[in-house]
Formats: sequence, structure tokens, C-alpha cells
Amino acid sequence: MNDHRPRADGARVLADLNALRALGAYKTGVHRPTFSEPHIRALEWLVRKLPEAGLEGEIDGIGNVLGTSVKPGPKLLAGSHLESQNYAGWLDGPLGVIYALEAARVINPDPGIRGAVEVASWCDEEGHFGHFLGSRSYVGDVTEHDIDTARDRTDNRPMREALHASGLADRPRKTVEHGRHIGYLEAHIEQGRTLEGSHLGIGIVTSIVGIWQHQITFTGEQNHAGTTRMKDRRDAGLSAARLCVAIDERFPTASGPRTVWTTGRITLAPGAPSIIPGRAEILFQVRDDDSQIVEHLEALLREIAAGIGATSGCDVEVKRIRTGKPAMMDEGFQRAIEEAGLIFADGKSLRMPSGAGHDAQVLATVMPAGMLFVPSIDGISHHWSENTDDADIVRGAEVFVEACRRLLAG
Amino acid sequence: MNDHRPRADGARVLADLNALRALGAYKTGVHRPTFSEPHIRALEWLVRKLPEAGLEGEIDGIGNVLGTSVKPGPKLLAGSHLESQNYAGWLDGPLGVIYALEAARVINPDPGIRGAVEVASWCDEEGHFGHFLGSRSYVGDVTEHDIDTARDRTDNRPMREALHASGLADRPRKTVEHGRHIGYLEAHIEQGRTLEGSHLGIGIVTSIVGIWQHQITFTGEQNHAGTTRMKDRRDAGLSAARLCVAIDERFPTASGPRTVWTTGRITLAPGAPSIIPGRAEILFQVRDDDSQIVEHLEALLREIAAGIGATSGCDVEVKRIRTGKPAMMDEGFQRAIEEAGLIFADGKSLRMPSGAGHDAQVLATVMPAGMLFVPSIDGISHHWSENTDDADIVRGAEVFVEACRRLLAG
Repeated sequence: MNDHRPRADGARVLADLNALRALGAYKTGVHRPTFSEPHIRALEWLVRKLPEAGLEGEIDGIGNVLGTSVKPGPKLLAGSHLESQNYAGWLDGPLGVIYALEAARVINPDPGIRGAVEVASWCDEEGHFGHFLGSRSYVGDVTEHDIDTARDRTDNRPMREALHASGLADRPRKTVEHGRHIGYLEAHIEQGRTLEGSHLGIGIVTSIVGIWQHQITFTGEQNHAGTTRMKDRRDAGLSAARLCVAIDERFPTASGPRTVWTTGRITLAPGAPSIIPGRAEILFQVRDDDSQIVEHLEALLREIAAGIGATSGCDVEVKRIRTGKPAMMDEGFQRAIEEAGLIFADGKSLRMPSGAGHDAQVLATVMPAGMLFVPSIDGISHHWSENTDDADIVRGAEVFVEACRRLLAG
Repeated sequence: MNDHRPRADGARVLADLNALRALGAYKTGVHRPTFSEPHIRALEWLVRKLPEAGLEGEIDGIGNVLGTSVKPGPKLLAGSHLESQNYAGWLDGPLGVIYALEAARVINPDPGIRGAVEVASWCDEEGHFGHFLGSRSYVGDVTEHDIDTARDRTDNRPMREALHASGLADRPRKTVEHGRHIGYLEAHIEQGRTLEGSHLGIGIVTSIVGIWQHQITFTGEQNHAGTTRMKDRRDAGLSAARLCVAIDERFPTASGPRTVWTTGRITLAPGAPSIIPGRAEILFQVRDDDSQIVEHLEALLREIAAGIGATSGCDVEVKRIRTGKPAMMDEGFQRAIEEAGLIFADGKSLRMPSGAGHDAQVLATVMPAGMLFVPSIDGISHHWSENTDDADIVRGAEVFVEACRRLLAG
């Protein structure tokens, strides 16, 4: 079986990634939010490329692209996403789509290889309008009502309006054809420092962490910043600051070795220089692949918040606004990536959990799924300076194509 | 002299204040930001009222209203402002304008009283477009360039555009006529709890605090909230929270008995749930009528910020963006208010500094100035629920009219 081992074309992979980088270019990265004009152009670019891999497809009613093959034999689904965070990196998403396209280009036209790779670009993995709307639509987990109420978190534009403006409003949404695929494989940049720090080329994802998100609101007394004495104040903003500091002090002893937590946003109302904030809203997130740890930390969060509310005279509310369960990656997929890594990456691979959420966790609810990571320079991600060495990009593509071949060979 | 002592008409004062409350009504308060349609209607309302007091005036090129008298004898300038903070109280501003109007209505037509009260409404005391733009324009402290660059802090609308939309763009700006006035008297709600807490009816302002404002910026490393381990983070948001908590711990021992400080706004960039904030901006303010204390606290602020920057690995910048000097109120004006209080408020008055800024501090740079406070229920201000007992409003008007009469009598 290993006699016939076609290889990824590294130059072609790099050229495609750079072609996508030109759509919505921002410094060395891209600004290509969901349903922006450069995002639609990227989706159209992919649709035009599919025939090179013997695939046909178009953009569906939620902005997914699905390239399907008529080649007989098993089908492997592979892909990622083409939109970006605002003013962010060029590889987060496109890498996985181009690897999938490359695998399809190498494998599908080859009569010596059984089956085909089918390519997917899932819309809005970056969550401009929701959480994994594209892949969740594909697995049947997004209702029309969900779309009716979704809005762009940056400018509050309704998703219906964005779909209409993009010419997608009247198209059907493609959903999973049960039994069609042997599974789903996705490649992504690591977005952390683990691989780089250990001089490894390939990460084999074992699980994708669960994400719990909380909105914590302190309500004090809005008042004049000049005439209200310090002792008379119930400052919601100060309570918010105390919460962040207390979390930083108390979470480390209650968390696991890979738990992470982040306060991404603090909003003080009314937010004027001469007014004591009467209301403070904190957007807080915890991630771990161990649900028990996350549950325990949520209890601790509630305890800390209640204590601060009591001593500061502010009312406090802790509301969980997102409960994302951890997802396990298929053992057979992990093995295929590992074996491909022995051939194309000198075995320099590592099994590791993913701290970031990915479409693979959604696909894992309906079929076996696996993920492959390549290193991120300095671990930087969700920033325009995000990057990966060309050599690592090419090596990752080679491992990815070989892993696809092995999975199709069964 | 005291034989002829005309009295304010309390019912008329309350009726006028309620007429203004109807312009831009919001719950029991008002939403009447500078150059909003209800604000312009309030200015026009005042212009129509001036003839009742033997005054003539119109809205000038910066939105000030100045009602002037042709009555011989000394002139006393009196007033306040008619715009409000966003969704704020009904008395902050209008009280002082209506007291001035009432004093003019009582005193000006009376041939038995020497001289006249002239009424002013200063535009934008609440700082939607700048700091005291109206009164500073009147004293000659606002250039055309200042107006060119001023923008609404809520929606960023250029001031030029707002002046044009309000039909004021081509009008001249009225400026101070040196020697015309014996001084400036302003009434205002206290916006604090001092008078209410001591069961007093009248506050005699001795000084208006200086306000220093700082913008503190922490710059860390923007990164992915799922893949960046806790130990690898340089979280600008956490640094900002630490600063607020450290200020709360260390300022009390370094401040004076009436010093106040406030963090009115915290902005984390990019402000997304799954991104570690790379940048945090804090809007901070200190007030005291002792400049030495404020200077000392600024040095402490810089020390605390530098310490947090050093331990958190974030760059930090502390920039002073406003330096407002304290203003002393005229002793003769204080005495006139005190004597009027003996007659109309059973002597229940208190000399006190003003923790809030007022147009009187600007007028004090060109003429003697004084201020009178009435109590605020629960000390609430800059909020729609701001209020004062009707009895306190009427008593304040009586004291104000009598103080004007005494000042004109010399």
C-alpha cells in the first residue's frame, strides 16, 4: 500500500494561502469578517478551485461551501473556515481549507487511490454572528429562528440582512448526509507555544476543550464623581476590578494544569469621566477538557462575586451564557496522523488537547473526527502578526495528505 | 433698605422647571444633550421668556443665551445651563437658569430696586463637546480651531455640524463686556448628601474643586484565550483591574478629607470573549480644591501604574488629559447669600466647597463669582432619578432673589 504515496505540492499550497491573504489584506494578516465582501470573494475563490480536485460545489444558504465528488469509494470530509477575526491572522482557517483542497487535488484524480476527499469551508467559525453557525447548520443544529435573531457582534447588523446582501438569502442550507463520510479531518495552526517550545512539527489533537462563558453584572449606584464622597459610593466599576483581581488570586489553586480563563471585556455604564459607574458588565470565559474542573471553577466564581457584592454594597448577577462541552477526537484518526507524521515529519509529533474551539468539535457529534496542528510562531493568534514558518506549512500539508490517504485506505 | 423686599414666586419657579422637564422628558428626568432638538427648544423657550423680565436676548453662535437689560444702574449676571447629561436629571442646570430668570422678573421691573439681573444660559456645561465651551467662549477662551476639532463624545458628531444643523453656524459669539457686571451668581443642586445629611437648606460655595483627568494605557500581548497558557500571558485587562484595586487601597492615606477619585471608563481591546486583551485604557479623575494634594496623588498614581506594569510585563503610559484649577468664590457674594439665608432659610446654611465643576469657575476668571446650593434628595445626580423637594426649590429661589437684591444694593 505504501508503494503508491503521492505527495502534497508545497509551493501550490503556499501560493493558494497567499492568494487568500490578498483578499481583505491587513498588514501581514487579513480583515475578513463573516459576510464581508472579501469573505464572500474568498468563498467564491474556493468554489472556482474545486474542479481542480474533481469536486463540485457552491456557497449554500448559510455561507458554507461543500465540494462533493462522484468518485466511487469511501469519502473523507476535510476543511476549516475562510472568515477571520477582525484584523487578525492569515492562517487561522485558510490553512485547513487549503490542506483539504490540496489533499483532494492529490487524491481524487488518482485512480490508484480508493475514494475521495470532499472539501468544506464552514461559515462563521470565528463567531461574528454566533457559535460555529456553519458547521452547526450542517449537523442540523441551527434553526431558522437562530438565524432570525443572530446579529454581527461588531456592528449589530442582522444576519438576515448580511445573507441578503451577499446574495445567499434564498439558497438552501446543505445538511449532513448520514453514512456518506468515514469522518472529518481538520488542520489548523496551534495558536499556542507548545509545539514551537518543544521543536515539534505536528500536533495530534486528542480532545477539544469545553468553553463556558459567563456574564457577570455588578449594579451599584450611578452618581456624580465630584460630589459623592468616597465613603458614600457604591462603585460598580471598582467591584468589577476587584473580581478580576480575586479570580487571578484564587483560580490557580482550583484549576487543572491546562485550564485557562479570560476576562475579554469590561463595560462600565454610563462610561463617562465624571460619573461613578452604576453598572459594570464583565465577559468571562473558562476552558478545560475536564468538565468537573469547569463546574468547580464556576462555583468558585459565584462565591467570589457574591463576596465582592456583599462588601461593596453592589448587587451582583453571574449568568452562564455559553456551555460548550469538550469533544474527544477519534483514536483511529489520531493514529493516522501519527503514522503520517512518522513518514513526513520525522515522527516529531505530539498528542495534545486543543485549547481553542474548532468546527471539528461540531462534526465530532455526527461522525469520527480528527485534527492536526502545525506550529504557530511565538504562539501568536487572533492578531494580524500570526504566522507559521513556510517549512512547517509544507510539512503539515504533506502529513495531512498522507493521513487522508491512510484514512481512506481504511 | 430691607423695607422693600420683593419675594420669589415659588409656584412660577416650579411651573417653569416643569415646563423645561417636558422638553426631552425621560422617566422623571430628561435626555437633553447639547444641540439635541429638545435642547434647542429649551433655549428658544428661554429666549421667549426673557421679555417677562425686561430682558432681550437670543441664542448666540455657540449656543449661549444672554438676556440683557437697558435699566440703569449696576448689572448682576446670573444663570446656569439647559442641556443635560444623557438620560439624566431635570434640575442640573435648569434650576440655576430659572432662579436667574425669576430674580430678573422680580427685580428688573421694580423701580424701587437699583440695577438689573441679566440672565445667561451657558452652552455645554455638561461637556458633550468639550469642557464649559459656552462660558469659556464668553470669557474669550475658545478659539475657532477649538470648535473645528470638538466632537460629541457620544456619537462623535463634529460640533460644526451640530451648530449648522441647529441654525447657529453663522451667528456671532457674544463675549464678556468688561466692567458691565458687578459679578456672577449661580444656583445649583448640591449633587451630594452634605446639606440633606445636616438638615440644611442652603449651601454657600466657598470654592470649586480642581479636576485632573488621566488616561492610563496598559499594552500587553493580544492573544488567543484558549491556546495561550496562563503563565505565558501579558494581559492588559488584568493590569487595568489591578490598578483600580491598588488605587482604592493606597489613595485614602494620601488624600485630603474631601478628595474624590473615579475610574469612569475601562476599555479593553479588542474586547472579544475569546481574545486576551492586548490593550487596556482607563479614564481616571481626581478632584480637590487643594492643588498640592492633587499633585501628590498624581505622583502616587504614576508610581502604582509603573509597579503594575513591571510585575505584569505590560507597558504602561499615564497621560494627564485635563488640568482644571480650583476656583475661589468671592467673599462678598458668600456674605450676601448667607444674609439672604438668615431671612428666608432660618439661617440653615453651610459654607462648603463644590466637588462638581460649574460655569461659575469660568466666570470667576473675569469677575467676582458666587454660588448657592440647594439639597439633592439622597445626593443623587447625573441620573434621571435626581430630585429636590419642592419646598427646598422654593426656599432656594427666595434666598437667591434676596441675594441678588443685596448684591445690586452694594
